[in-house]
Amino acid sequence: MSDIKTFGIIGTGVIGAGWAARALARGLDVVAWDPAPDAEEKLRAAVANAWPALIKMGLHEGASQDRLRFAASLEEMASSADFIQESAPERLDLKKSIHARLDAAARPGVMIASSTSGLLPTDFQADCATPERVLVGHPFNPVYLLPLVEVMAGEKTDPKYVELASDFYKSIGMYPLHVRNEIEGFLSDRLQEALWRENLHLVNDGIATTGELDDAIVYGPGLRWAFMGVNKTFHLAGGDAGMRHMLEQFGPALKLPWTKLEAPELTDQLIDNMVEGTKAQTEGTSVKELERMRDDCLIAIMNALKTFKEGAGRLLHEDEVNQINSVQSFTRFEKGMDIPAAPMELYRCSVRPDWVDYNSHMTEAAYLIAFGWATDALFRFIGDDEAYRASGLSFYTVETHINYFQECSTGDPLKFTTQLLGLDEKRMHFFHAMYHAQTGELLATTEQMLLHVDMNAAKACPIREDVYEALQAVMAAHAGLDVPEQVGRQMAIKKK
Amino acid sequence: MSDIKTFGIIGTGVIGAGWAARALARGLDVVAWDPAPDAEEKLRAAVANAWPALIKMGLHEGASQDRLRFAASLEEMASSADFIQESAPERLDLKKSIHARLDAAARPGVMIASSTSGLLPTDFQADCATPERVLVGHPFNPVYLLPLVEVMAGEKTDPKYVELASDFYKSIGMYPLHVRNEIEGFLSDRLQEALWRENLHLVNDGIATTGELDDAIVYGPGLRWAFMGVNKTFHLAGGDAGMRHMLEQFGPALKLPWTKLEAPELTDQLIDNMVEGTKAQTEGTSVKELERMRDDCLIAIMNALKTFKEGAGRLLHEDEVNQINSVQSFTRFEKGMDIPAAPMELYRCSVRPDWVDYNSHMTEAAYLIAFGWATDALFRFIGDDEAYRASGLSFYTVETHINYFQECSTGDPLKFTTQLLGLDEKRMHFFHAMYHAQTGELLATTEQMLLHVDMNAAKACPIREDVYEALQAVMAAHAGLDVPEQVGRQMAIKKK
Repeated sequence: MSDIKTFGIIGTGVIGAGWAARALARGLDVVAWDPAPDAEEKLRAAVANAWPALIKMGLHEGASQDRLRFAASLEEMASSADFIQESAPERLDLKKSIHARLDAAARPGVMIASSTSGLLPTDFQADCATPERVLVGHPFNPVYLLPLVEVMAGEKTDPKYVELASDFYKSIGMYPLHVRNEIEGFLSDRLQEALWRENLHLVNDGIATTGELDDAIVYGPGLRWAFMGVNKTFHLAGGDAGMRHMLEQFGPALKLPWTKLEAPELTDQLIDNMVEGTKAQTEGTSVKELERMRDDCLIAIMNALKTFKEGAGRLLHEDEVNQINSVQSFTRFEKGMDIPAAPMELYRCSVRPDWVDYNSHMTEAAYLIAFGWATDALFRFIGDDEAYRASGLSFYTVETHINYFQECSTGDPLKFTTQLLGLDEKRMHFFHAMYHAQTGELLATTEQMLLHVDMNAAKACPIREDVYEALQAVMAAHAGLDVPEQVGRQMAIKKK
Repeated sequence: MSDIKTFGIIGTGVIGAGWAARALARGLDVVAWDPAPDAEEKLRAAVANAWPALIKMGLHEGASQDRLRFAASLEEMASSADFIQESAPERLDLKKSIHARLDAAARPGVMIASSTSGLLPTDFQADCATPERVLVGHPFNPVYLLPLVEVMAGEKTDPKYVELASDFYKSIGMYPLHVRNEIEGFLSDRLQEALWRENLHLVNDGIATTGELDDAIVYGPGLRWAFMGVNKTFHLAGGDAGMRHMLEQFGPALKLPWTKLEAPELTDQLIDNMVEGTKAQTEGTSVKELERMRDDCLIAIMNALKTFKEGAGRLLHEDEVNQINSVQSFTRFEKGMDIPAAPMELYRCSVRPDWVDYNSHMTEAAYLIAFGWATDALFRFIGDDEAYRASGLSFYTVETHINYFQECSTGDPLKFTTQLLGLDEKRMHFFHAMYHAQTGELLATTEQMLLHVDMNAAKACPIREDVYEALQAVMAAHAGLDVPEQVGRQMAIKKK
């Protein structure tokens, strides 16, 4: 654990406030200063705005927004901090004078890191009496979520502080990337800036809108970049021969006007460096394994985005809706409908990738998720649809009993049968069986009791008449069916 | 639905094979041709390699690898296809001659799309008799997963084919992006290429390795790019004033050497276009809402990557392991340990963002996931650890009974108690109760029966002696405890 307890912040805009939120969520004290008149109010609002996300990430012991203190001056902040993070506007003259003042006020050994996106620490050190503890720690917005922080030394920085700062950043959940050569824009921003400037050119030349350019990223290469940089990506695009083949194939394209940025000469030395670099990155992992990992990550990301219907996730969502509508045979009860005296087959699906564990076996909880979709199909059949729930009515599960019989794996086709066991004005009691849709093998069963609730009043209430009629029709059809043997089972290990 | 039944492919490398896999998974027939002597074998292997991922995404009706046919000639392929996708090497002379032959052999109205990464369709049309159906459809690797396809017309392309091709691509789950102006590298590759060439410069100048440069993306900006392009990202970075403020703040940086690509002059017209563009992209959504969406997506993506321990997901995984180790009080049974005659408190956690529905309420299945972690804590206590499972031994849940009492929401702190109800050589029967850790309110309970199995033999077997001893000690301590009222409950709605 780090012995840094109080994190000092100067500059409380989007970046400074992001630092404050991250440090507070990790259980640190934060002392902040900014010369703007309404800075404290805005900072507290920004931290409060970030807090729900931080709760979702999991707060650490002692985490509290109350541990944020606004200092009366730069000097008071600097003298009470164990680590100082400067996030002032990107003006060299301003940053230089701030660093001189911070350095004068900070206790010996207290590191002073700048959030600058591209200016050089050597310049910040110019007027500092103890420049050896001054360096760059460049984060990414939102700072409270994104782990990357580029750590870069100036000419006078003592290397031990690069290590100490990296340790501190790690202790607050970040990924410190040591930028070994002092260069404007560092690594990440140089790459981003190239993308950004090409983007500006395309808008400037009237080729595309900002929205089209964003689409060109989020539906394609951007999905890969969430876990695989351009080098590893291109290594994979080269097939079994990797980066070397890729450079042979696309090397000539470097001469083409495919961006306004001219490429360096593709010398033998550069080719070797690219090949050696990606070889080191992927050491011990075959292209096949990397492809599998890439595919798994892409599928997981697209599924994650499905919840929020963003980008590629929106497509998956729409696709799923279309699929459900096309696969399910009869979807809604109508008066006079003939319901056979047999468990109803309302739902089919395949075992999804997010339902399995690292062995590709469906998890215990995923059986319940799949049963939940079968329940959803029953809801649709009886007329408990989105409009029903929007009106404040819904069924809540109060009790569930599951019997597990067989494992299943990703992609296995499943079919479900549903038998109504009991019904009154406010409750239904049913039984789902899950089968392998091809072999017919019984995989699992569940028995559930659901209570009908008025969600606004948060209490039980009668089922709406038309929905109740549909349930009564099912109940009438199922009244003579045998009760499955799993219903009402009691677990016990007899004492010997 | 599209009336395109047979998808024709020429060029069966990484991209062509990716197209084949996507089309087959969507239930189309695919006919392919490539002049390489072992092309068919390699193509079938590549499709087979992609298939597990496609199963995870969900195969469509009729999907089969058997519906791939390898044609004897380019002409045979072209004459039997309803849509032709050309994925030949990036050599203009080669592509021109291929397109002339495809055009001569294809039936009237059959579209011919090129997968080229940056060459121009007008050039491909030069020797075609019916150039109006020739265009670009540029996909991204892996084509069978990534949805983006850039659609671009040449000078002689009939605009109706841009629409028809887009409709077809949509029908196979893709996101067609119409590139409205014919330009080398299109949109996505121009952006990617700028990033790539800056990357090559940084390696060429000895500034960084390929691995460092990849890290500079995947732990930071790359996580955003999976769902938010550079323009929307920068709009958000500008705070409430959005893109205009962003351009004011970072406009001067466009003059700085933060990449080798020179920026265009930031004229009033360009500023207006950028501001208007992002305004159109975010119409009707406040910066606060966008920030919430961005945070939710980032959290979901990082959690998705946690499963595969890749990039930011690896950090989350490590963080979680550290947290579990620091929070849980006593972790492993030792001989002679005094076990109190009370349910054991072995596990605490908070309700995670991936455990809740769109209303932020914990889902039914998530209660079971949380109970699973409590079971995991019991496993650790009795010595059923990773080494135990690696030796082929494990407990399988065969029966579960859950009672739900109260809803809970993201971030709610949970604590669990565990009571052993029964034990023999091959089985254990226990009861978990889940409480709100602050209010003490009972949220849910579960009763479970677990069977001890030899995973290699796939059958029940005795619990290993040391683990059994630990369980016996717990059983002895719990023998006199009252049986919770939820144990052995039977569900029923009495008939009136």
